[in-house]
Amino acid sequence: MNELTSALAAALPDGRVLTDPDVMDSYARDRTFVPPGRPLGVVLAQSRDDVVTTMRWASEHRVPVVPRGAGTGLAGGATAVDGCVVLSLARMTAIRELSPQDEIAVVEPGVITADLDRAAREHGLMYAPDPSSYEISTIGGNLATNAGGLRCVKYGVTRDSTLGLEVVLADGRVLNTGRRTMKGVTGYDLTGLFVGSEGTLGVITAATVRLRRAPREMATVAAEFTSLRDAAAAVSAIVAAGCQPSMLELMDRTTLQAIDDWKNIGLEPSTRAMLIAQAEGSADEMAALCGAASFVAVSSTPEEAAELIGIRRLAYQAKERLGQCLVEDVCVPRSVLPEMITTIEEVAARHGVMIATVAHAGDGNVHPVFVFDRGLAEPPEEVWTAADEVFRAALDLGGTLTGEHGVGLLKKRWLGLETGPVAAELHQGIKQVFDPLNILNPGKAI
Amino acid sequence: MNELTSALAAALPDGRVLTDPDVMDSYARDRTFVPPGRPLGVVLAQSRDDVVTTMRWASEHRVPVVPRGAGTGLAGGATAVDGCVVLSLARMTAIRELSPQDEIAVVEPGVITADLDRAAREHGLMYAPDPSSYEISTIGGNLATNAGGLRCVKYGVTRDSTLGLEVVLADGRVLNTGRRTMKGVTGYDLTGLFVGSEGTLGVITAATVRLRRAPREMATVAAEFTSLRDAAAAVSAIVAAGCQPSMLELMDRTTLQAIDDWKNIGLEPSTRAMLIAQAEGSADEMAALCGAASFVAVSSTPEEAAELIGIRRLAYQAKERLGQCLVEDVCVPRSVLPEMITTIEEVAARHGVMIATVAHAGDGNVHPVFVFDRGLAEPPEEVWTAADEVFRAALDLGGTLTGEHGVGLLKKRWLGLETGPVAAELHQGIKQVFDPLNILNPGKAI
Repeated sequence: MNELTSALAAALPDGRVLTDPDVMDSYARDRTFVPPGRPLGVVLAQSRDDVVTTMRWASEHRVPVVPRGAGTGLAGGATAVDGCVVLSLARMTAIRELSPQDEIAVVEPGVITADLDRAAREHGLMYAPDPSSYEISTIGGNLATNAGGLRCVKYGVTRDSTLGLEVVLADGRVLNTGRRTMKGVTGYDLTGLFVGSEGTLGVITAATVRLRRAPREMATVAAEFTSLRDAAAAVSAIVAAGCQPSMLELMDRTTLQAIDDWKNIGLEPSTRAMLIAQAEGSADEMAALCGAASFVAVSSTPEEAAELIGIRRLAYQAKERLGQCLVEDVCVPRSVLPEMITTIEEVAARHGVMIATVAHAGDGNVHPVFVFDRGLAEPPEEVWTAADEVFRAALDLGGTLTGEHGVGLLKKRWLGLETGPVAAELHQGIKQVFDPLNILNPGKAI
Repeated sequence: MNELTSALAAALPDGRVLTDPDVMDSYARDRTFVPPGRPLGVVLAQSRDDVVTTMRWASEHRVPVVPRGAGTGLAGGATAVDGCVVLSLARMTAIRELSPQDEIAVVEPGVITADLDRAAREHGLMYAPDPSSYEISTIGGNLATNAGGLRCVKYGVTRDSTLGLEVVLADGRVLNTGRRTMKGVTGYDLTGLFVGSEGTLGVITAATVRLRRAPREMATVAAEFTSLRDAAAAVSAIVAAGCQPSMLELMDRTTLQAIDDWKNIGLEPSTRAMLIAQAEGSADEMAALCGAASFVAVSSTPEEAAELIGIRRLAYQAKERLGQCLVEDVCVPRSVLPEMITTIEEVAARHGVMIATVAHAGDGNVHPVFVFDRGLAEPPEEVWTAADEVFRAALDLGGTLTGEHGVGLLKKRWLGLETGPVAAELHQGIKQVFDPLNILNPGKAI
């Protein structure tokens, strides 16, 4: 420890500060290839007071602070910067309150997302946002990125389930935003502003989240198609018919092949795409709307449904077996989903890049995963060129650069293309209000 | 016209600027008793460019601008201030786009809320937010206040249906926020920040809103109770049973009496409260859950349902027949709704004030309407005392001052009780970023 970190360690309870370089390295990265800076230290916060102490110290000494949850981010948002303190919230794991009557919970940021969902289900409720990583990601990380997930086609993203926050500001002051009620319009929407701000405006130490009634019975359909276009057409048909799916997931051949190579799911050679749809009620209706499918399976039990959805949840890990991954996250209006997917296939072919695509198709949220050689320190030039073309195509189609992962570091160079100079100026102005010393996750998100 | 307004009129197309004092008076008020200031002029904007011209002129000459829609607000948010220009958006009534495939619409602020809903229903869709005033209020006003409504127990408030905005900033620059996609996390949530900011951060000239599938069949139940507590218990039972009502409205005896006096609905002398519930499916289940009711009606046709709901929509106008109204808008966690309603009754009795209460009970959003003598310029002291006690009780119960009407002028003196000094400082900081000259609706909301 140097003088600075010793002072921090002395101000905190014992055992909160780590400075061993090897240990720090595992706290310096997220799930991307982005090479981290070298932190001064890592704080393992266990309480709001630990966070207050850390932020006061950081403000006094002008030390950058990089907050993090489980480090499952896919945009470099939690990557350490040189000379920072990494502030881990992973040990703040209390569910402070869970009120079935009011359908709310008050949770600390280190709670694993699926754990909150399970706690809610004991009362017939659920926590709806479910990023693919929900068994390993934290609520705090989900709040920082405004994470989406498989169910958000029906239930919305993390912000839509967030009613209020306890936040430690850059100078160590504590702010409570929002409310415990379903509605409320007192003052500006500071809650919504912190959600998705990627740790650049404050450190969230608790959230009041909305729980929802868990659906009574779910129908799950998996359909295989011999063309991506047919699968995309089934997506449109299911939405247009008013089935109101709570899940509508699309996987391309490359993704399915990676899963099959790993888990042997019996993939047919002719299958080019798979759709997994879930809704309350209408299994037969959804199955009928997959008219062009080469194979349709309808689940009759929750176990069968879990198995079908399990295939989808393997997608990212299966792709990581193929090489390093640049996971992208464009989102387009649903009507142009076929065009977006076709463009991705053309871009892959043109540049000789492997792109495996999954989509939260009901939202138009497409994850093209660019796979590159494990030996490389970062993606080769042709991957960046291909990614650039995919981003611009998404914007040209009326879409956005990132549906749910955040801007982090990876997407900063394209940010201006989407938001423009006026928004950029307002972003900087807001940042200045909340963090005048620019110590909170500097260089990220905006 | 004076020199200033002549310059503005010259910069705008013909006929956009009004300065006749009598005409201006009708543009200077909202639906409250709050006495307006005297405007310099009224601008009837017909295009975004008219708004740009007005804001440039206002910035140059440091003239306050009070934006307004239909003037149906209940908190004084659109009330003119001395020396301002009132900027009416009511003539910007274009639905620029309605895409059934993408389930979005792009609308101008002067569109009447129910008109948008009707346009959506031609495609099997709906615009979900439906403040009681939706036949006379505008989308722009709904956005400014983050309006709620009867259906928001299921579908959320205006912000939950807003994807993106076109905004003219204080200096006349145009900003586009958000997106046309269901999800998107690029940059800070400027869209959410403008919604509910009551015209203090910018002038909204278009909104991209989310449409939803209109439900296939709706069941509507109306139940009469001989006690308010029994009605509140039925609310809890309906929610706990997972009926997922899209409407769950409560009216007290005073409200029902006012409606009966006007429209003769055949109110029984013993009836103390009525509940109107609507959901997809479960009419019989909801009716059974109103076990303590003295009378239950289940609608079997859409016409019958419209008649039942029509009673609720008469509530505010019926009360206006009794005298002047201070319409309040507290919101509490649903589990304490009975306590909140009991407190309101006690406060009314203690101070000898007539309070007629309706509630969006499924949200815990309670509208106690304080009725006072038509001859008075403003509410007498006992009304303010009673209102103060109701506000403090709501906050003590974990609630908020305003569920959906906004702070405006009426609730500013209680604002600090809910938000505290740190939030107040951040509100002012944000205001300074967007409106450094403090010309946008000064003195309101924050």
